[in-house]
Amino acid sequence: MSQARIGLVGLGVMGANLSLNIAENGFPVAVFNRTGSVTDAFVASAGDLAERLVPAKSYEALVASLSRPRAVIIMVKAGGPVDAVIDALVPLMAPGDMIIDAGNADFHDTRRREAALRDKGLSFIGMGVSGGEEGARQGPSIMVGGNPESYAVIRDIIEAIAAKHEGVPCAAYFGPDGAGHFVKTVHNGIEYADMQMIAEVYGILRDGAGRAPAEIGTLFAAWNEGPLNSYLVDISSRVLGTLDPKTGQPIVDVIVDKAGQKGTGRWTAIEALRLGQSPSAIEAAVAARSWSAEKATRQAGKALFGDLGSEALPIPSEADLERALLAAKIIAYDQGFKILAAASAEYDWALDLASAAEVWREGCIIRSALLDDMASAIREGLPQGQLIFAPRFAGLIRDGATALRRTVAYAASAGVPVPAFANALAYFDTMRQGRGTSDLIQAQRDFFGAHGFERTDGGEGQHGPWAGSVAHS
Amino acid sequence: MSQARIGLVGLGVMGANLSLNIAENGFPVAVFNRTGSVTDAFVASAGDLAERLVPAKSYEALVASLSRPRAVIIMVKAGGPVDAVIDALVPLMAPGDMIIDAGNADFHDTRRREAALRDKGLSFIGMGVSGGEEGARQGPSIMVGGNPESYAVIRDIIEAIAAKHEGVPCAAYFGPDGAGHFVKTVHNGIEYADMQMIAEVYGILRDGAGRAPAEIGTLFAAWNEGPLNSYLVDISSRVLGTLDPKTGQPIVDVIVDKAGQKGTGRWTAIEALRLGQSPSAIEAAVAARSWSAEKATRQAGKALFGDLGSEALPIPSEADLERALLAAKIIAYDQGFKILAAASAEYDWALDLASAAEVWREGCIIRSALLDDMASAIREGLPQGQLIFAPRFAGLIRDGATALRRTVAYAASAGVPVPAFANALAYFDTMRQGRGTSDLIQAQRDFFGAHGFERTDGGEGQHGPWAGSVAHS
Repeated sequence: MSQARIGLVGLGVMGANLSLNIAENGFPVAVFNRTGSVTDAFVASAGDLAERLVPAKSYEALVASLSRPRAVIIMVKAGGPVDAVIDALVPLMAPGDMIIDAGNADFHDTRRREAALRDKGLSFIGMGVSGGEEGARQGPSIMVGGNPESYAVIRDIIEAIAAKHEGVPCAAYFGPDGAGHFVKTVHNGIEYADMQMIAEVYGILRDGAGRAPAEIGTLFAAWNEGPLNSYLVDISSRVLGTLDPKTGQPIVDVIVDKAGQKGTGRWTAIEALRLGQSPSAIEAAVAARSWSAEKATRQAGKALFGDLGSEALPIPSEADLERALLAAKIIAYDQGFKILAAASAEYDWALDLASAAEVWREGCIIRSALLDDMASAIREGLPQGQLIFAPRFAGLIRDGATALRRTVAYAASAGVPVPAFANALAYFDTMRQGRGTSDLIQAQRDFFGAHGFERTDGGEGQHGPWAGSVAHS
Repeated sequence: MSQARIGLVGLGVMGANLSLNIAENGFPVAVFNRTGSVTDAFVASAGDLAERLVPAKSYEALVASLSRPRAVIIMVKAGGPVDAVIDALVPLMAPGDMIIDAGNADFHDTRRREAALRDKGLSFIGMGVSGGEEGARQGPSIMVGGNPESYAVIRDIIEAIAAKHEGVPCAAYFGPDGAGHFVKTVHNGIEYADMQMIAEVYGILRDGAGRAPAEIGTLFAAWNEGPLNSYLVDISSRVLGTLDPKTGQPIVDVIVDKAGQKGTGRWTAIEALRLGQSPSAIEAAVAARSWSAEKATRQAGKALFGDLGSEALPIPSEADLERALLAAKIIAYDQGFKILAAASAEYDWALDLASAAEVWREGCIIRSALLDDMASAIREGLPQGQLIFAPRFAGLIRDGATALRRTVAYAASAGVPVPAFANALAYFDTMRQGRGTSDLIQAQRDFFGAHGFERTDGGEGQHGPWAGSVAHS
C-alpha cells in the first residue's frame, strides 16, 4: 500500500481543495470521504495530481496508508461531525499520531478535544484556515494551535500549502490547545468589522450622496490603490461594478439586504466579553448583521418614521470618507489585538500578536497592505498595548479622526446608520479621555449599593456621605 | 420549637434586611448564618421584630423550625456558596419542600439547580431581588421563576415584602426554572444603559459646556420632575450636589473615574448574543465600564492625542439633552425587552413582558415613571415587538430623534464619547431603514464564500456572476 505523508477526511469543497493544494506541493495525501463514490469522483477529476492522491475507502485503510507518526486532517462540519470522526480515528492510531481539525471550531471544543486525546497519548492540532474555497486551493492563511512537537512533524506541509507574503509562509504556530482556532475566530470577528465599515461607506454614498453602485465601485477601486488596499475593498469594488445577468441592474440592487452569519463574529464578541473586553466595532458589525435579518420590522419602521434627518450636515468628501474608513479600520484592529492579548493572558498561550498580523497579510479574507505595517508596529512594541498609540499609526489616527468625526456627525444628522464607525470613534475618544465620566457611575453605585469608590487623593474603599450632605445649588 | 413560615440562610446586609422585612410584615422567619454569633447579634439588634425571628444554630434546627411545606431562602454569595448551602439543606428536606435562591444567580445555574432538585422531589425557586440594601429592607422588586405550585405557597410573603406601585405588589412569577433570575439579569443590563446614558449627558455638560457638578445636579433635579422622573436621575442629581466632607470639593471630582462591575451587565450582553440579539446600548454601557478601568491607557491617550474636536458643532440645548436622554432610554428598553422575548422563545417561558415592566415600576434601581407607560404599551401590543413602534412612544421617539441626532453629532464633533447614545441612534436608524446595506455584505460573502443570497425578485440561493461580468464604470 502506498505511503502518504498525511491524510484528510471530508471531501467537501474546502477539503477537496486543501487535498489538491497538498498534492500539488508534492506531498502524497490519503483522502477519505464517508461516501466512497465521492472519493472516487474526486480522485478521478484530479488530473495529474491524482498520482499523489491515495483514495481510502475506510478509516482503517486511511490510517494504514500513512507514514508514521500519522497525521490526519479533518475538514468536516464543526461540532458533532468532528467528534464522530475523532471517535472513528482514535482506536486506529498509536501514541505520537495526531489529528488536525482544520474546520471553524469553537476553541473551547478544541481545548476539550486536545485534553481528551492527550490523555490517550495522541496529539490534537486545532488549525484555523482562512481564505475560503479559493484560498484552500491556492494558499490559505493558517493558524495553528496544539502540541509544538507534533506541529514540527507537519510544518513543512503546512508552510508549503500556505499563502506567501514576499516568500514568507502565512502559517504560524500560536500556542497550545485552542490558540490557533482562537486566532482564527478573532480574524473572523475583525472580518465582520471590516465588511461592515465598507458597507457603511456604501450606505453614506448610496443614501446620502445618491451615488450609483458602479460609481461607488469605481471609488473603491481607486481606494484599493492606496493605503486601503485590501482584498475586501477590492471585492467590494468588483461586486458594486457587477450587473445582474437576469435584469441588467446593478447586482447589489437585486440582493435582499439581509446578511447571513455562521456565528464566528458572534463567538468573537462573546469570548471577548468573557475576557473583560468590549470590541465595540466588532459588536456593532455583529449587531448590524442581526438587525439586517429583521427586514419586516425595518420596513414597518420606515413607514412609521419615514426619512428623518432634516438637519443633515454637509456630506463628507471622498477624501474624508477614505481617511475615516482607514482610521476606523485601524481602531477595529486595535480592539481585535486586545482580545488576542487578553486571551493569551487568560489561557497562558504566550500569543505572538505580530505573528497573527503576519499570517493575515496574505491568503485570508482580511488580507491588506495595512497588516504588514501592523505587524511591524507590534514588533516595535505597542504603547499600553494600543495599536492606535503606535508611532506608525498615531499620526494617521490623529489625521483620520477629524474625518471620522465629520463622517459620524454627518451620519447622525442625516439618519444614515453607521454603528461600526460610531463605535470606533467612541472607543477612540474614550481612550484619549484622561478623565472620563465613570466617577458619576461609581458614585451612583455607592449610593444604591454601598460599593465604595477609589479617591483621587489616594484613599480606597471610601463611601459618600449621601445621607446628610446632599446640597444642591 | 417555634414554627416559622419561612427560613433564611445568610445574614449579610441583604439577608438581614430581607429577614427584617419579612418579620415586619408579620411572618415568623427562621434565620441562620454560618457563624452563630452573627445570628445572635442580628436577633439582638432587631428590637421589636425579634419576636418574629427564630434563630437557628444549625441547618437541622433551621429546617425543624419551619412549617410544612418548608421554604428556605438562600441569600449568600452567588456560585459555589449557593451550591454548598443547597447540599446542606437537601438531605434535611422532604418532597414538596422548596429552596429559594434570592441572590444574583446566573440563570443557567438556576436551571441546573432546579432540574437537580426536581429529580429529588424538591422545588427550587430562582428569585431575583432588586433594590439594593435599602430595597431589601423597605420593599424590593421581586422576579420569581420556578415551580408555580411552590410559588403559590410563599406568594403571600413575597407580595407582602415587595415594593408597591399604587398598592400593587412589585413581585411576579415569570415562568419555570431560570425565568426570574433571567428577568433580573436583564434588569441589571438595562440599569447599566440607564446609568451610562446619564453619565454621557454629564460628560457633555461637564466637558462640553464647562458646567460645575452642582449645576448639572440642579438640572437633573428639574428633569426628575418631568418625564425622566426616575430613581437614577434622582440619585444622580443628589450625587452631583454632594460635597466631599474632607476637601469641600464636589464629591464626583474626588472619585476616580473607574467604574466597577459585578458582571450582570456583561452577562446580559453575553446571553443576548447567544440568543441572536444585539442590545447595543447595553453593550456600550458594559464597554464604557470596562474601558474606564484602563485609566493609565486613557491618560497616555490624552497625552498623545490631546483635545481634538476643533470643529465642534453647537452644544445641544438643555431641552434637547432632556429629549435625547428620554428617547435613548426608551430605545435601550426596547432592546432589553427584545432580549426577554428572545429568551422566552428559546426556553419556553411564556414571559409576560408587561409584567416585567410592572414589577420594575417600584423598588428596583431602574424604577421610573416611564415604566408604567411601557407596561401599558406592551399590554396594548407592540408592533413587530418594538417598544419604539408603540403608539404611546412613536411620537415621543420621532420628536426625540432630532434631539438625539444633534447630541450624537455634537459629541462626535467635539470629541466627547457617547457610546450608548450613538448606539441607540444607530439602532433606531437601522430599524427605520427599509433597505439597509447588507446587500453589499451578502454579496461579499457570496464572492469569497459562495454563501449565496436571496433575490429581491423572489429567487433564493442565488450566486453572483463574479467571475465573468465584473464591469466597472
